[in-house]
Parts: sequence; structure tokens; C-alpha cells
Amino acid sequence: MSSIKIFSGTSHPELAKAIAKNLKMKLSEIVISRFACGEIYSRSLESVRGCDVFIIQTATHKVNEDLMELFIMIDALKRAFASKIHIVMPYYGYARQDRVTIPREPISAKLVADLIAAAGADHVITIALHSDQLQGFFNFPVDNLTARKLFVEYFNKKKIKNCTVVSPDAGGVKEAKRFANLIGVQLAVIYKSRPSHNVSEITTVVGDVEGRTCLLYDDMIDTAGSVCNAREALLKAGANKEIYLAATHPVFSDPAIQRLRKAKFKEIVVTDSIPIPKNKLLANMKILSVAHLLADVIEHVHKAKSVTEVL
Amino acid sequence: MSSIKIFSGTSHPELAKAIAKNLKMKLSEIVISRFACGEIYSRSLESVRGCDVFIIQTATHKVNEDLMELFIMIDALKRAFASKIHIVMPYYGYARQDRVTIPREPISAKLVADLIAAAGADHVITIALHSDQLQGFFNFPVDNLTARKLFVEYFNKKKIKNCTVVSPDAGGVKEAKRFANLIGVQLAVIYKSRPSHNVSEITTVVGDVEGRTCLLYDDMIDTAGSVCNAREALLKAGANKEIYLAATHPVFSDPAIQRLRKAKFKEIVVTDSIPIPKNKLLANMKILSVAHLLADVIEHVHKAKSVTEVL
Amino acid sequence: MSSIKIFSGTSHPELAKAIAKNLKMKLSEIVISRFACGEIYSRSLESVRGCDVFIIQTATHKVNEDLMELFIMIDALKRAFASKIHIVMPYYGYARQDRVTIPREPISAKLVADLIAAAGADHVITIALHSDQLQGFFNFPVDNLTARKLFVEYFNKKKIKNCTVVSPDAGGVKEAKRFANLIGVQLAVIYKSRPSHNVSEITTVVGDVEGRTCLLYDDMIDTAGSVCNAREALLKAGANKEIYLAATHPVFSDPAIQRLRKAKFKEIVVTDSIPIPKNKLLANMKILSVAHLLADVIEHVHKAKSVTEVL
Amino acid sequence: MSSIKIFSGTSHPELAKAIAKNLKMKLSEIVISRFACGEIYSRSLESVRGCDVFIIQTATHKVNEDLMELFIMIDALKRAFASKIHIVMPYYGYARQDRVTIPREPISAKLVADLIAAAGADHVITIALHSDQLQGFFNFPVDNLTARKLFVEYFNKKKIKNCTVVSPDAGGVKEAKRFANLIGVQLAVIYKSRPSHNVSEITTVVGDVEGRTCLLYDDMIDTAGSVCNAREALLKAGANKEIYLAATHPVFSDPAIQRLRKAKFKEIVVTDSIPIPKNKLLANMKILSVAHLLADVIEHVHKAKSVTEVL
Amino acid sequence: MSSIKIFSGTSHPELAKAIAKNLKMKLSEIVISRFACGEIYSRSLESVRGCDVFIIQTATHKVNEDLMELFIMIDALKRAFASKIHIVMPYYGYARQDRVTIPREPISAKLVADLIAAAGADHVITIALHSDQLQGFFNFPVDNLTARKLFVEYFNKKKIKNCTVVSPDAGGVKEAKRFANLIGVQLAVIYKSRPSHNVSEITTVVGDVEGRTCLLYDDMIDTAGSVCNAREALLKAGANKEIYLAATHPVFSDPAIQRLRKAKFKEIVVTDSIPIPKNKLLANMKILSVAHLLADVIEHVHKAKSVTEVL
Amino acid sequence: MSSIKIFSGTSHPELAKAIAKNLKMKLSEIVISRFACGEIYSRSLESVRGCDVFIIQTATHKVNEDLMELFIMIDALKRAFASKIHIVMPYYGYARQDRVTIPREPISAKLVADLIAAAGADHVITIALHSDQLQGFFNFPVDNLTARKLFVEYFNKKKIKNCTVVSPDAGGVKEAKRFANLIGVQLAVIYKSRPSHNVSEITTVVGDVEGRTCLLYDDMIDTAGSVCNAREALLKAGANKEIYLAATHPVFSDPAIQRLRKAKFKEIVVTDSIPIPKNKLLANMKILSVAHLLADVIEHVHKAKSVTEVL
Repeated sequence: MSSIKIFSGTSHPELAKAIAKNLKMKLSEIVISRFACGEIYSRSLESVRGCDVFIIQTATHKVNEDLMELFIMIDALKRAFASKIHIVMPYYGYARQDRVTIPREPISAKLVADLIAAAGADHVITIALHSDQLQGFFNFPVDNLTARKLFVEYFNKKKIKNCTVVSPDAGGVKEAKRFANLIGVQLAVIYKSRPSHNVSEITTVVGDVEGRTCLLYDDMIDTAGSVCNAREALLKAGANKEIYLAATHPVFSDPAIQRLRKAKFKEIVVTDSIPIPKNKLLANMKILSVAHLLADVIEHVHKAKSVTEVL
Repeated sequence: MSSIKIFSGTSHPELAKAIAKNLKMKLSEIVISRFACGEIYSRSLESVRGCDVFIIQTATHKVNEDLMELFIMIDALKRAFASKIHIVMPYYGYARQDRVTIPREPISAKLVADLIAAAGADHVITIALHSDQLQGFFNFPVDNLTARKLFVEYFNKKKIKNCTVVSPDAGGVKEAKRFANLIGVQLAVIYKSRPSHNVSEITTVVGDVEGRTCLLYDDMIDTAGSVCNAREALLKAGANKEIYLAATHPVFSDPAIQRLRKAKFKEIVVTDSIPIPKNKLLANMKILSVAHLLADVIEHVHKAKSVTEVL
Repeated sequence: MSSIKIFSGTSHPELAKAIAKNLKMKLSEIVISRFACGEIYSRSLESVRGCDVFIIQTATHKVNEDLMELFIMIDALKRAFASKIHIVMPYYGYARQDRVTIPREPISAKLVADLIAAAGADHVITIALHSDQLQGFFNFPVDNLTARKLFVEYFNKKKIKNCTVVSPDAGGVKEAKRFANLIGVQLAVIYKSRPSHNVSEITTVVGDVEGRTCLLYDDMIDTAGSVCNAREALLKAGANKEIYLAATHPVFSDPAIQRLRKAKFKEIVVTDSIPIPKNKLLANMKILSVAHLLADVIEHVHKAKSVTEVL
Repeated sequence: MSSIKIFSGTSHPELAKAIAKNLKMKLSEIVISRFACGEIYSRSLESVRGCDVFIIQTATHKVNEDLMELFIMIDALKRAFASKIHIVMPYYGYARQDRVTIPREPISAKLVADLIAAAGADHVITIALHSDQLQGFFNFPVDNLTARKLFVEYFNKKKIKNCTVVSPDAGGVKEAKRFANLIGVQLAVIYKSRPSHNVSEITTVVGDVEGRTCLLYDDMIDTAGSVCNAREALLKAGANKEIYLAATHPVFSDPAIQRLRKAKFKEIVVTDSIPIPKNKLLANMKILSVAHLLADVIEHVHKAKSVTEVL
Repeated sequence: MSSIKIFSGTSHPELAKAIAKNLKMKLSEIVISRFACGEIYSRSLESVRGCDVFIIQTATHKVNEDLMELFIMIDALKRAFASKIHIVMPYYGYARQDRVTIPREPISAKLVADLIAAAGADHVITIALHSDQLQGFFNFPVDNLTARKLFVEYFNKKKIKNCTVVSPDAGGVKEAKRFANLIGVQLAVIYKSRPSHNVSEITTVVGDVEGRTCLLYDDMIDTAGSVCNAREALLKAGANKEIYLAATHPVFSDPAIQRLRKAKFKEIVVTDSIPIPKNKLLANMKILSVAHLLADVIEHVHKAKSVTEVL
Repeated sequence: MSSIKIFSGTSHPELAKAIAKNLKMKLSEIVISRFACGEIYSRSLESVRGCDVFIIQTATHKVNEDLMELFIMIDALKRAFASKIHIVMPYYGYARQDRVTIPREPISAKLVADLIAAAGADHVITIALHSDQLQGFFNFPVDNLTARKLFVEYFNKKKIKNCTVVSPDAGGVKEAKRFANLIGVQLAVIYKSRPSHNVSEITTVVGDVEGRTCLLYDDMIDTAGSVCNAREALLKAGANKEIYLAATHPVFSDPAIQRLRKAKFKEIVVTDSIPIPKNKLLANMKILSVAHLLADVIEHVHKAKSVTEVL
């Protein structure tokens, strides 16, 4: 079996270190620097000839820098004769632009897939892709993991009484249903409708939430607008004041933190798929780490064992 | 401008003729035959050198034959030096297998896209793709049309009083909402939940349907199981007995017709994106033709004018 | 060395089992099903990550179904991270449409090669390709085996006296000559000519057949027209009544069986490269199995040993 | 319509000039030189931006130089923004190495196709490909012309009495038959067999040649061994002494000319698909020009008209 | 001829406007926005179906943003059925990382070429590529323009007496020589050598500069270190105090402006291939516009006329 | 680890043998022949299925033959299922045509890279590429070795007193500087300038050469014009009469040998990257072998160890 090397981009070094620790390995040494003119430079300090290489790079608020850095790392490692290059991208940037809704839009999620392939990667490992169809955007197979297991374990321990899982919109119903089933609770959905023309949109809560403890469950929190509106709707519908919020990807774009601070959720549970800067950490925030999950998958991939067992 | 030629596969010759008629053209002559050993043969009887060629071929119950026939037609026309080959596939087969839900599944929708491209096509025109993300499966741009306009025109004339558009499942909510808004009526959604483990699934109607005339709206009718269940649920929820059913693609796999016959919808409105054999025609069935829509798009594509105007 | 898995499509399960038995292996478990709408679904029940995968699928009378099923199996196994996918296709469908003889024909044999590659296969193993040039249609190397050895063994045991191998047309002369040399008998050829315009075609037997036992030798029997005509011509030329017929691929399209029944060959010797339905089995038919040959080649391929030794 | 430019490589300038003359055009000016170190250099002296470019280059005895020169011309014209690059290669080199007959052989004919495509050509026009299957070696369509019409016209005028067309081997039977039918004469075939092991090969003439005037017809004359042997066999079989020889491609490798000089054919009729050096011209040689045919095809291709009409 | 549309990215709108003005056209309307999460979105407000599209986007200090924005614009326009997409990138980012000098470096200049192609562009127009070999990094032809003509015109008008063109390093000698010849003055070169180990590098001026007015000429000014050192060396070598500095690309990375301010060149002449922010403008700076040059080339490209005439 | 096989083309069998000897291996047996018609044929006599194959082929004066032979060898070995095909091309032909200097030139160095890739190679190992940017011409990584170490060892032993390394033109300055530093001596450069229009070019020696022993150092000697001119210039500048000449690639095109014979260098030191025919060997010629270097690299590549250690 070829030897394995793990490299970290600059987007999320803590996660990379945690993954390496889980694997009882050290991160391989690589130079990543920026010239005064803004250009990125990267060079491995270790030979990778014939190695099975994993690059840990997630998408943050400087997603374009993250992606260009990733492409340059791939190019450098490919030209240094790495045998296979696996990209571990816990949060896949541009995932939401995955279709043309108004004519002449880009399909940026497909573009990013094409650019990753053009740079020379052989495989992508990611978590909770915004839509499952994104797997078909790649010409090579993709490991689309789910952090559901982490949330199930966490909330199973919590044993919240009288609990209802709530999907904040129609798009997330399927995944919310799977989650609700796994923790053995009821499901409700919030959706928006416009009864007739020229009437403003109405938010409706569907399912039994009155007097119950709600757990809003989504794939990501971006500006937190929809989850905060959902919280209002649940309260209006008679839900308990203690509302939980769980989501895989803490994108936390402005004004997410102001809104969340104001909303006073009982708890905000997210993963570390994206690093959260200190000034965005709230007291009621709980972060579940995906490091163990990713380390397991990396090991299974490297040893060509079924990844299905891990999930 | 290069000249235009339209060819029909054997899957839906009536639609092809109707499209040609709308364009005031004749279908180009092509031999499509099957040898005793089952192999397909195809040969254009007209020169296509330098022409802008459109092939009309939809997916029917013999979808694999339809696809192989399409690939062979593309190959023959490409080798005869056609300038551009456009595929007009009103119903795109295998569209529902668009993601890996259990490990080791194929993404057949992506496979079909790759095979169409490998055969040599340059462009695909289709209607109501099962998921919008399918556009990203092609390396060339795709015109994903909608038949919504046809349904809007039809039901605007009907002027059904007291009407509610109903999406039979969570996945179709967005499209149903757009349709309901266009005909200026309310929206309801039917969804299935399992309140806790080991409890059978419950169908819930969300939105106001009591005493109202419901119009079930979906992208396709396959075995008609879900729409017939939906009908039952609506009646239980107090809806008017006169329930309408509208869907773009009349797949009508067994036992769809038995179920629909039994269900006694007020009207079943579909398009001719797939041919309906005579023995599957019901008295309460209304077929809206996509021929005019497709003819318009073909003309705009050929003249390199914006297709957006047509929609 | 990576581990090996063998999968069978639905076209020829008996052959697949026989191959596996020869290799002292079990066929890997895979779901292959058809939806009511005609679409095929396939999913391996075993992990194939990193495995050397062989798919056994031949072309039968439902060649288009066989091919689409093959493409979907390839897609599913590729996305499940199989290391290499080898296609074992004893009879390669569409092989005869390998050139443009009249303008605007397809080259379907090339198209099938392109589609197999687009689906994601890495290697094809086949028997007695209709023309050797077909190897050049693939961008990856192809193992084009011959069943000649099986026929040589069989007829060497028979020790037919006074025997002449006869090629039923000019195209098969080279192969018939190789075969005749290996069993140490004479060669004759049948060919058709038209002495001058407006004169009907004449079938001529070239070589000494008078009073001799003829053995017609071809690559396939499709509708059996040419071999039955050849038999008539041999009898007219004074050949013994006991005429043998040997051919690799028993395509047996209608009306092959009626013709063969009427023709009363001494023996019809074919291989099991294509399954023969019970109602097409004749008393004078002898079937030589290619299972041992294919098993040997699979083993050599998997162990990266020279396949030449096997042949 | 984009404008047309015709360039000549150094392999056959006379033919290129004749083609241009037929088209009432001038050859475009291009530098083709060789450095002292053996490297080739090429540069068009005219702008080709947006032009429809045809390069005339055949394969001669310095086939490797001809091919490398062709690749470099293609590269230079492609980088100069030619719109389409058509290769007119009357004799396609390496055509005979079109399959693997002994394991580990190259398929050079496919390799040459791949190299032409890699250099950047869009289309190939050639004459009498050694096997029709070669068309499938290209990923773009190929115009495979035939010079049959030229021979038919020539021999129709000759009105040879009592004539039989003879194919010098089994491989050429089909084409010889087509030709014989077109000039309305009989067909005979020469083939070689080995009646049993350890017996030397016997050349047999099949068909009626006794007392008749034979016209040997083949696709090419390489070392002239087989046609001279065929001549001997025909004489032995009682043919008239006046034997004609007709073949499309005058490859004339040593010792072809010595053999042909000795053989004293009545007439040797070839085309100018390959230039014949003065010292290889014989008194009984007749050269039919393919210039008019190629000019017609070029014109039809450029104007996107059916090439079928020309043939 | 297809119609032409010109789009501007956000990197250099002034230049785009100037180009459009030169062409007597308006820039086409396009939305380019950034979400709170950092992702870029772009959508043309005009139909581009069948159009010949030019995108003006240069590389600035936020080169990674510029490139990702470019890729997304290309994707959006390609999916909107643009006929051809031409990239006008006056300053090509990452051009200096064009080779592996220490093992395991990337070749970022090649990577950027591959990414541009993967996004879907058909053609690149750029100015003064850092090395001419970069043209070979693209699989499509590249128009590598030079701004030399602008500098020649400018300095020919200046009529500097007693002038010597100076190349600040060995790599730029060839281009400096061409420039010096065109304005009819002498050439000098500055280069660095290390006479023996452990001795610090020595800057040497080669050529006659004593008492002469020097004109330092380079392809770009990045941090201005080498040109300021060059200035020192020229003064030491006895050059006139009035030293001119001319360079195509004003990259001006920190601390370029401090250095240039201190250095007190007689004049700093650059082009507007990169926008210069107001706070970096110096009193002795002269900016020559490439807008006219680029407009001319765009027109010639669109009309498929020789670009050579423009240069 | 897969087994290794080394094949030699016909361009430089002595070097291939020396490499094999260094590796304690035998060259694998392969047929390479030429037909009377000029076509090349090649076939390995050993199985290569699954092997790591290295082909030794350099560029000589018959560079086009060398390249076509290489392509055909690659094709044959690829079709025989070689696992990886590495090309060891000590002197890479067409390297100097690496950019478009006058419009409409080819980039032959890129073309050769594309052709090697199209033939099916996976990796190229070469020495002293004319420009480093050539690495970016390949879509796979390239090992561009340097023979500098050989020259350093040789001249370090010589201990020439009072020595100055001289680059014969501006292009070679960087490499000459590295070499001079490694042997710890001074550097000088010769360059040509034209002080003003209509004045003939002047050759100038820059750096201290008076009374010193000069060592001209270049990447190749083609026609030897520039090095002989350089020698004259050095003598004029007062250099010692004993001038050394060192260059990696002995291309030696006419009239190189006449010039070198006349020039009477103290010593001409080259490598055996290209074979030197006996009639071109001069008494003052010293040939350093690259066999050991290449053998080391082959071993490291095969064992997937860092090649950097070798250099």
C-alpha cells in the first residue's frame, strides 16, 4: 500500500490538526505564502512521489482565496508526483448555486467541481452537500458524508422531552424527517405561502408544536434570517420558549450573530466544518467536531475499505 | 445561417409531426429499422452536411430502446457532418435516479447525460426536469423548459371557483407555489410523517382544503400511487369531491390506469410529452400539447435568439 | 494485489456462474431490477472500493437492454470506487456495423465502444470480434480472444475423414484457413459473383469438395441464410451429404432455427457466448463452453500475467 | 461563408497544384523548411484567421517525415486561428497496421489518427482506405473517397474484349466485385491455400480466365510481389498473355519496379495519390489523376454540400 | 457574422469603458455581486445566445478574487449559449510562476490557463506575457500583444538626447534590445554576479552609460526593488541623474510606491493594464492607455481579420 | 511493486545499454523494423502486462524518425497492457521552437508534448530542457534533470586556475551563474547589441576575462556558430588562448565539426545525451556519460522515491 500524507490549507488548520491527531499522524509540512502582489505560492517540504495525499481545505468567508489556494496546492502536489490527491472539503463552497433558476445564471457548484478536477484532484470528501445531486457534478466518485450521526448522538443524550424536530423550509423536509426518526420524535415543517396575488407571504407551521419543545434542524446557518423567522413562527404557534437550533455548517455571515444573539435560542448546535472566529462564539453555542468522522473516512479510503461502515 | 433539419425517432412521431407543422416544415426523411437480431439501424435519406439538426425523441416505457436508438441516430448524423445536433427530449428518462441515496447506487441521470454527450450531441432541450440540478450534469448548456404556462392558460380559462392547488409531496412545493401564484389561488401541501419509531406513516394535509375544490399538481404521474393516496387524504380533510389532477409527464406505468379509473378525478390534465397509448386514454383525460412550445424554442435556438422570451 | 470481484448482468447468468466456478469463486451479489416505467436499477450488495471488478454481460436479442444494463452497472460500480472495471462481453453487439458503406450510416460498433468508455469501463474482453480492426475503436487496450482452440480440440477428436473446411464467404477466408491448417485439412471457399450486368448472382464453390465431408466454418450464425445456401451449393458441387457447421456465436435470429431444422446438418457446433433458449435447441446441436477460456483470461488479467499463454 | 485556403506540404506539390488549378485558386504561401539538425519549421505567409483551411499531404516513402511535417503545419495553422483544418491525405500511411494480429503489436493506423487529431485537425479526406473500419478510428467524421470511378471511366473507354477482373487475394474480393459489375465483366479471384500441414502453399485461380484478358485490380501496389505472382498464376491457368494491372495507390517500394519491368504487364494503371519519381516511371504505366475528384470534394465540403453527389 | 458583446468584470471597469468607447459600443449589462458569505454571483442582463463575447478582466492585487469572478462570469455566459468567449486579460496573473525551479513547486501560470479553459473560455488576449512560452500552456491559440508600440511612440516624441535603453536584468535583454532598436538608441544591461563563493553579489552595468540619459525598460514593476537598485547602479556608473523608467504592467506591490517616491525618477511611464489606485499615483507618473490597442484587436478578432496588422 | 522493463529505441542503443548496466538489468527485447515503404513496425518480445515500462529514445539528426518510432513503441506497449509508460528522452527534440516569435509559427515543443501524450505515455524524463517553461507544456509531471553535476565534478577535478565561466549569450546567464557558483569561479557574459539603426551588430564581453582562462558553458552545441564567435570575442578581449567549451547536448549539425576543428578549443566537454558518430569525434572532445544519472532517476521513479535526492 502506498504511504499516506495529510496536508492542511490555511482555511481551517485546527480541524486539520484534529484529524491528524485522530489518525495518530503528523500533518505534512508545506509552505503556503502570499506575495505582496496577492499571488499565492505553495510547496511541499516533503517528497510525495507515489503517496496517497489528502488536502484538508474548507470554504470560509474568503471562499475565493480558499479555492485558489486549494487549486495551487493540488497543482504543486500533482507535479511532485503524488499518486492520488483526495480533497477533504467539509463545507463545499458555492453549493447553493447548483442550478439555473433565472436564465443566464452560472451553475457555480458545477464550475467549482470542474475547476477542482482541472487542477488535478482525484476524489472529493465532503459533508452534507446542499443537494445530493451535486455528486453527479463530478466525473469521479464523491464521498458525501453526513454529520447526522453527531447530532443524533448529542440529542439522544439530551433526552429533550416533548420534542418536535422542525424543518425551517420545504427543501429540508426529507433530511429533517430522517433525523427526527433517528431520535424518535415528531416532525413539523414551516413553509411560506401566498394565498392569492397581491397578498403578502404567510409563514405557516405544519405539524404539532403547541406546548412542545422545538428543535430547528437545517444543513447550514448563513445569515440566520430564516431560522430566526422560523423561531418567531414557532412561538406564535404556541411552541415552548426553549427552542433548539441545530445545523451542520456554521457559515454565520453578517448579520447572523446579531440575529442569533437577539433570538436567544436555548442552544445553537453546529459542527466545526467551518472555523468560527472567536468574536462570533456565543455562550449558547455548542460545537460538535467532525474530526473523528473525517479521520475514519480517510483511513477507510486509504485502506480501500468500505466507507459505508463509518457512516 | 445554416439550414435546419428536424428528425423524429420512433418514440413519439405524432409530437414530432406536430412540431414540424408548427414550424411549417416537413420532418426530414430517415430510415430507422431493427434487424432480426435486435440491433437498430439508422440512416438519413437527406444530406445534413453543415445543417443545424434537431432530433425529437422522448423516453417511453421502452426507455432503453429509445435511448439506444437516439445514440445511433446521433452517431449517424454526426458522421454525416451535421453542424450541430440538438436533442429535443420532452421527457428525460432516468431523471429520478439523480443522486446516490444508498451507497453503491448509480447516478443514472448523469450517466444518460454522459452517454448523450459521448454519442456526439451538442445541446439538449427538455421539459420539467425532475430536479433543476440535472442541468449541471451536462458539460454543454441545457434548455430546461416548463409546461407551466400551458397549465396556467388552461386553468385560467376554467375559472374553478374556490380552488386550492395541492402539492402531493414536500419535494414539489416550490413549483406548486409558483403555479398557484400564477393562477391566483391558495396552496396546500400533503406530506407524510412518522411521529415516532414503530408507528405507521401518517399522511397530513397542510393548508386549507375544507369545502374547497382541489387541484393536485405534480411533475409526473408514474404509477399514480401517490396522487391517489393524496386524493383520499384530501377527501378525508373535507375537500370537495371534484378533485382535479394536473401533471406534465404522463408516464402511466402499471397500475396507474386502474388506479386513476378507480379514483374518478374530475379531470386529469397532462401534456403529450410522452405518447399515451389508446388503451390508456380515459374519458376524463385532457391532453395539452407541448408542440407549439417546442417549435417556438427550436426556432429561437436555430436563429440564436433568446429562448427566455418564449417561456 | 487488489481483490477481485465478478458480477453478472442478466444477459447470461449461466455463463457467469460457470466462469466463477472455474475460478473457484462466487459471483458477487448485485441487485438488478426494472421499474414499472421500464428503467433499470442496479446496486452492488458488496463493497467494491479498491477492487478489480469484472462484469460478465453478452449481447443477446435484447441487445439494447443488455447494453443499457451494462452501462448502469458500470456507473454504479465506478461510483462505488471500484479500482478497475473490466467488461467481459463474449459476443460484442453491433460489431457488424463497423464501417460506413452507404453515406450517412452510423458506425455503431464504434459508438458502443465510446459508450462503454463513457460509462467508465477500463478494459474489454471479448471473443471473435467480427473484424479485428474493432480493437482500434477503443482508446484502451482490448483482449480479443478466439474460440478457435475449442473447435480445434473438438474436431481433432472427431477425426472426420476426407474433410474440407469451407468458408461460406470471401470475408471469412483468412480465419477459415488458420482453422483448416490447425486441424490439418483442406480449405474451400464459397463466393458469389455476377458474371455481367442484369444476370442473377451465381454461387461458386472454389476448392475440392467433390465426395468430401465439408465443415462450414464461420464467426456467427445469424439468420442462417448464408450457411444454408452454402450447404446447397456444396451438395450441388458433389459434397458428401454429411455437412458439419461450426460457428462461434449462435445469434440464431428468426428464421434461423426453421432453416437449420430443414437443412439437416450432420452437426451444428457453436459456443455458449450467447445463451440459447430451450426452444431453439436442436438435437444435432453441440455447444462448446467458453467459460474455461474466459476464466483463464480473467485470472491472467487480474494477476497481470501474459494473456498470450492462455490462447 | 468563411474563406477557403489551400496549403501544400512537401510530399506531393504537383497534386496540390493540380487540385488548386481545378478549383481556380492559388495555393496559399507557406514556408516549410528543415534546420541542419533535422527539425522541420513551418509558417504560413498569409493570414488564416477564420479561414477554412485544407492541407494537401500524402504519405510517401518518407512517411515519417511527411507525418511530422503535417503535424507541424497543423499546429502552426491552428495557432494562427484557422477556423477549420481539413487534411487531404490521398494515401493514408500506416493504413495496413490496422489491427493486432500477433500480441503486442501496435495499431499504427489508429495511432496516426490520434496524432492527427492531437495536432489539431478537424477532418480528414482520403482515398481507398485499406479497410473501411479505419473510419471508426477517428473521433470526427472522415470522407473516405474511392477512385473506382476513374478506373471505370478509363476501362469503359478501353472496351477490352473478353475481359475478367481478377482480385489478387481474398481480401479484395468485395471491391473487385463492385468494380467488375460497374464495367460489366466477369470476376475471378486468386487465393492461396495449404491443403494439409507440411505442404507448401498453392496459388489457385477461381473463376473463368482461360483464354480471357485479365485485369488485376487491387487497392495498392507495394513491392508488387503478390500481383506478379498472380500474373504467373493467371498465365498458368491459361489466361491471355495481355494482362492489365490496375491499383489506386502506387507505393512502389523496392523491388516493385524491377518486378514490374520483368512482368511485362500490358498496362499498369495507377492514380497519382502518391508521386512517382521519374526513375520509377515505366513505358506501360498509365497515371489517372485524382486532382479533379479531390477538388470537387473540397468544394463540396467548403460549401457544406453533400459529398455523396461527387462520388 | 454573429453579433459582438463586451462585458467588464469588476477588476478594471475604466479600461473596459475606454475599450468600448474606442469600439463605439456600450458595455453589456451584467450583474456581479458578492453574498455576505463571500461567494460571487454573476448574471448577464442581456441575451448572449449565439454572440461573440469578450470579457475584460485583468489581474490586480486581489488576483484570486479577480480569477474566481472571471471563471463565474465565463460559466454564466457559456450556459447562456454564448457562441465564443474571449478573455481580454491585459495583465495575466501568476505569469511569473511558469516553471518548477525548486522541486515540488506549482506551475501556477499553467494552472490558471487550465482553469480558464475548464471554465469554458475559447480564447485569451493578453499583453506582454512574462515569458513567451506561456502561449504553449494553452490548448487554444493565444493573442499575446505587446505594448512596445505605445512606448516607442511616446519616447519617439520625447526625443531624449544621448539616450541609452537599459534592461534591469539578463532576462529582459531581448525585449529591451527590440525596443532600443525601434527608438534608435543604444542598449545597456545590468546584471548581478557573484565572483566567487561567500562573496556578496555584485551589480554590474554593461554597456555605455557614462554621462548618458538612461531609460530603464522592463515588463512590469512589482515591488520596484530591482529597478531602484538598477537606478543606483546606473548613477554609480556615471549615468545622468535624469533616469527614465518604463514598464508595461504597474503591479506596484508594497513597498513599490515608497521606493519610487524616494528614487526620484525623471519619469515613470506605465500602461493602464492594471488600475492604479489614486493613492499610488505619483507626480512623475505617465500612464499610456492600452484601450485603443485592445479595441483594435477585438475588432480584428471579431471580424476574423489578421491581428498582425494591428501590432 | 510492479516489475520494471527497459526498452531502447534505435536512436541511442549505447546509452540504453549503459543505463541498463548501471541498473544491473538487461534491456527488454523488442522488434523495431522498417518496411520497404518506409513504415516503422515495433513489437515487444516480452510480456509487459502490468509492468512499469521505460523507453530510452533521444532526438538525433533524424528527429522525425526518432519521434515516430517512439510513438509507435508507446502504442505497442500501451496496447500490450503496460501499467505505466515512462519516456526517457535525454535530448528533447524541437525544444527551441517553444514560442511564437513571428505570427503564425508553430509551437513545436508543445506539439511534441501533445503527441507524446496522445500516443499514450504517462511521464517524461529529460535533461536540460531548453527552457524550464517546457514543463508546463505537459499535462503530466515531467522530470527535467540537469547534467550540471557532471560538469561540476569534471571541472572541480581539473582545477583550472584563473578561470572564468562565460555564457555565450544573454539567455544562458542564469544557468551559467549557477554553474560558476558551484565551481567557485567568476562569471562573464557575451552579448550582442546594435548601438543604433543601420549599424552592424557588436559582440561585447561583459565581465573580467583579460588574461584569464575562459570556460564557455551552454546547454547545447548545434552548428557551433555562436560558441566560435564567442571564442573570437574572448580572444579579442584578451582572454587566454586556452578556452574550454562545455555543453550538455552535442547536436553537432553541419558545419559544427568544421568550425570546432578550426577553433581549436582547449577541450570540448559534452555529454552522451545524443550519440556522436565516429566521424564527428575530435581529439579534444571529452564525453561525460549521463547513464549513471538516468539509471539513478529510473530507480527512484520506479520505487516512488524522491528524485530530488539524485540531483
